[in-house]
Amino acid sequence: MTVHTTHEVANLNPEVHIALVHYPVLNKEGQIVSTAVTNLDIHDNARSARAFDVTSYHIVTPLDAQVDLVTRILTHWCDGFGARRVPNRVEAMRLVQVSRTVEEAVHTIMAGRPGRPLVIATGARKRENPLAYERARSIILNNSAPVVILFGTGYGLANEIFEMADAVLAPIGNPDGWNHLSVRSAVAITLDRLLSGCIA
Amino acid sequence: MTVHTTHEVANLNPEVHIALVHYPVLNKEGQIVSTAVTNLDIHDNARSARAFDVTSYHIVTPLDAQVDLVTRILTHWCDGFGARRVPNRVEAMRLVQVSRTVEEAVHTIMAGRPGRPLVIATGARKRENPLAYERARSIILNNSAPVVILFGTGYGLANEIFEMADAVLAPIGNPDGWNHLSVRSAVAITLDRLLSGCIA
Repeated sequence: MTVHTTHEVANLNPEVHIALVHYPVLNKEGQIVSTAVTNLDIHDNARSARAFDVTSYHIVTPLDAQVDLVTRILTHWCDGFGARRVPNRVEAMRLVQVSRTVEEAVHTIMAGRPGRPLVIATGARKRENPLAYERARSIILNNSAPVVILFGTGYGLANEIFEMADAVLAPIGNPDGWNHLSVRSAVAITLDRLLSGCIA
Repeated sequence: MTVHTTHEVANLNPEVHIALVHYPVLNKEGQIVSTAVTNLDIHDNARSARAFDVTSYHIVTPLDAQVDLVTRILTHWCDGFGARRVPNRVEAMRLVQVSRTVEEAVHTIMAGRPGRPLVIATGARKRENPLAYERARSIILNNSAPVVILFGTGYGLANEIFEMADAVLAPIGNPDGWNHLSVRSAVAITLDRLLSGCIA
């Protein structure tokens, strides 16, 4: 077993949040739409978040019916029959929160603290000046500000989200080849690349 | 753009297959059971397989009704309405095959060639002499034999599968901590660790 000093442990416990954005995202035609929340996106990403010691996982949707749906699912898995049937799932599902906008998620993450988190967007398409994973990892480990990583549903985050972000991670896989991973797989790989080995 | 010589390109195109095992696997009580195939396991893992240039993805189930279900799903997405609606999904779903046993998958993978593939099992629990990812990556890149990586559903692969495997990969995440990733996330992370940057 590795023994860490207090200082090293602090560095090894970065504060990272993730958000799965259902609005504003693109559809197949490139129009801005709101996508439907799916049960498995909540579960799979919550489990990846818990495994890599992510602080919170925000489901971003502006639609009342979708907010209600997520709330019902969370109640089932945090306090209801789901929690009794699969107790380890509680620890993952407790990380999940619902926010109506990306800004609301940012606000909740700061929880009254001054400043803003570092906002990192992700996408499957090539963009100018992508942030390399090694560099992102170094920023996360050496920065004291919280980091929030945004993932898009549908055909990816709308331009306005890329514009408000501080950085955009390089695409996973080959952006010149077949590059259509599920968002669940993209979340898992991104957290592994950025946080694996960083948790106590 | 990087220019590869023919020899380098050959090394950069390893033959890797994956199999998602529904029998024999464990249930919560540690009994050997057959789990149900899920639609999203087929899709998400097929997409990860295609993104990382995996040669084939075997759904292993001995149950007639499950074999029929997978076959119907594949027809829809390779030749039916699904193929017309999401054309890029065809390339992923064409990698999927159904095998009734792990041995049948191995036989299909060899396709009449002599010898056997290198069989690598995976799991969330610690086992003796785990294969490190760097070592596995080196084996895959430098070996001429095909490699097949086995993933368990339910509560993981049964012991008999670990015993027939040539090696067992180290668990992803912290085996002493909360380590309950979905199998879809485990497949994505494993392929990223072993094959990222290895494809042309």
